[in-house]
Amino acid sequence: MGNIFSDRIADVPRSFIREILKLAIDESVISFAGGLPNRDLFPVAEIKKAAVRLLDEAGGDVLQYSSSEGYRELREWIADRYRLKSIVVHPDNILITTGSQQGMDLLGKTLLNDGDSIIIEEPGYLGAIQAFSIYKARFHPVPVSEEGIDLDAFHHALTSHFIKLFYCVPNFQNPSGVSYSENNRQTIAHMLRDRKTILVEDDPYGELRFLGREKSSFYQLMPEQTVLLGSFSKTVVPSFRIGWIVANDQIMEKLVVAKQASDLHTNYFGQRIIHQYLSDNDIDEHINKIRRAYGRQRDAMVTAIREYFPAEVLYTHPEGGMFLWITLPEGMPAMEVFKEAIKQKVAFVPGDPFYVNKKDVNTLRLNYSSVDEDTIRTGIQRLGTVLKTMLTKK
Amino acid sequence: MGNIFSDRIADVPRSFIREILKLAIDESVISFAGGLPNRDLFPVAEIKKAAVRLLDEAGGDVLQYSSSEGYRELREWIADRYRLKSIVVHPDNILITTGSQQGMDLLGKTLLNDGDSIIIEEPGYLGAIQAFSIYKARFHPVPVSEEGIDLDAFHHALTSHFIKLFYCVPNFQNPSGVSYSENNRQTIAHMLRDRKTILVEDDPYGELRFLGREKSSFYQLMPEQTVLLGSFSKTVVPSFRIGWIVANDQIMEKLVVAKQASDLHTNYFGQRIIHQYLSDNDIDEHINKIRRAYGRQRDAMVTAIREYFPAEVLYTHPEGGMFLWITLPEGMPAMEVFKEAIKQKVAFVPGDPFYVNKKDVNTLRLNYSSVDEDTIRTGIQRLGTVLKTMLTKK
Repeated sequence: MGNIFSDRIADVPRSFIREILKLAIDESVISFAGGLPNRDLFPVAEIKKAAVRLLDEAGGDVLQYSSSEGYRELREWIADRYRLKSIVVHPDNILITTGSQQGMDLLGKTLLNDGDSIIIEEPGYLGAIQAFSIYKARFHPVPVSEEGIDLDAFHHALTSHFIKLFYCVPNFQNPSGVSYSENNRQTIAHMLRDRKTILVEDDPYGELRFLGREKSSFYQLMPEQTVLLGSFSKTVVPSFRIGWIVANDQIMEKLVVAKQASDLHTNYFGQRIIHQYLSDNDIDEHINKIRRAYGRQRDAMVTAIREYFPAEVLYTHPEGGMFLWITLPEGMPAMEVFKEAIKQKVAFVPGDPFYVNKKDVNTLRLNYSSVDEDTIRTGIQRLGTVLKTMLTKK
Repeated sequence: MGNIFSDRIADVPRSFIREILKLAIDESVISFAGGLPNRDLFPVAEIKKAAVRLLDEAGGDVLQYSSSEGYRELREWIADRYRLKSIVVHPDNILITTGSQQGMDLLGKTLLNDGDSIIIEEPGYLGAIQAFSIYKARFHPVPVSEEGIDLDAFHHALTSHFIKLFYCVPNFQNPSGVSYSENNRQTIAHMLRDRKTILVEDDPYGELRFLGREKSSFYQLMPEQTVLLGSFSKTVVPSFRIGWIVANDQIMEKLVVAKQASDLHTNYFGQRIIHQYLSDNDIDEHINKIRRAYGRQRDAMVTAIREYFPAEVLYTHPEGGMFLWITLPEGMPAMEVFKEAIKQKVAFVPGDPFYVNKKDVNTLRLNYSSVDEDTIRTGIQRLGTVLKTMLTKK
């Protein structure tokens, strides 16, 4: 057929993680490679109750086409939930999306022209890199660390180019697990004031804090300039693909047009089940259960790392979320470690896909949420052995 | 904020139908404006049974993240169903999408560069016009009638420009209800042979035939050059937003990348419920029930039109699907009729949004699937009175 494809699709990175996950599918492999919530915590019985109740009481109504904006009462629930955190959002400024991932696609569709500059975190969320690549964004990666974004590099990027978007995951970032300090957030908001840059605050993990104090949301600091993405994937269930975007009136109007062109509306039965579940259950109690479990899983991983990893290996100290980030000694590519590790039946994601213009990096991502504590210990021990052997050979 | 938006979003038509539907929401209005399946036919009890069974037997598995391609067994079911119609499709060439609408978005993403030419039907499906507008397609509308596409105009468009895509709904088209004759299909396939044009065959209504004989699918006539879109929205339920794309290996590879960037995967719980429902029930029996009901509703509308509409008004004779298309006398804009009709408590969609470059058209769309037979009769009588009054005044 020859080259029949759009230019844009040529720029999108293949999912490296998919290939990695294929290698990790062997049951004897302990995998820290996935990005999955702990399925043992899914509220199966409550979801069943909600589905049955809805079909008994509302019948065909929950099976019909619905509005592009999403189920009104679910949007009201989300607005009420934000209010508890002193974030003021009107339900009209919330659009239900097919997962947060679609939020990024809709933002790309409505805001990005070819070659528009956006600041992303380095390392950054692969899904965002993929979504914005489709719209031929020009990426300006700025390093993140335990403090948050590197403010000098951020200022430099901001003043050297017209930055259309700044995309960030300020709470328990994927892949690194780090969170922005309060001071880092305030400084970023200050730097962005009076600029036309839109800050995209992706917050899928914000509710999963097991340590430390909650920080200001960028949406609180600069509501008109921030687009906030949320999701039920990590607090209720992922398979329904239900997330949302919060945006000002002007942006929302365009997002709704783009949403309609993209998939008419998000799975309405799922929206109704989630809403029924939220109405009939204590979500805080459920979220606390997840927090405690992930806190224990994170502790198990940190404890095992201290015990089994060589001292030269650095790791982040997440206060929530699902990931921990490892920095190997200089000149030790994570891809090389991966090849050895898979032989020893342990898997992770080498850092490479989380950078837009670096290869053979010495960083890697570990997920602890989908592996039980004993298995975490065994897996980290295996990985520690691999690392020690490789370090000795160097 | 000034103009912060992408150029592409400026070109997308607002949903005119949304505005129309707002006027039709008044309970005293009989509305032929919607495009909804008959909700009385939704298999509520069976869906409930399927959901309960899944949650009891598979538990958390159906609530976890899943693959971008979609649930393997559902794709196998779809391939088997095609086989019954002598259409040979491998499950690997099926991608589950968030409704057919997303199929169009993914095709735009992977195939269209700015200004690429595509042939669409005139009148044409509004959702397709919206989806392809996002990718800044240049539209070449070709008229459709009860025979199918106008072959001379089609040939002219095909030979005057490089046509990247030809998008069509050959069975019971939305908005007109017309279907392409066998001869029309064969001729189109012949004209496209040895060209690089990809034919997008959107077939959401194909199963809903209540009259006449099934015709060849373009996918049968030219599998390598056809992308086929399907959906469970009209045969099972719309609210789950589950459709699919059938495409050759080369296109499928890009579609999966685009799918992942767009929403990771389609609502997996819904995919599983649909599959469970299809496994536990006789879908042909269910579809036959829909066919018979829509056949009766269509007959009620045609009978009432013959009785109440002025003879100068023309109408199509759909053999399936949900819509019927009205052509008013020249110089009688459907928008003008709409304004009078809404006063008389009857609504429809004026033809305007189904054309890319015409206004004040004398055509309109009537939906019969979501209105019962008695109400159809009353509504058509009201509309007939409006038409007669307006014709007399002319």
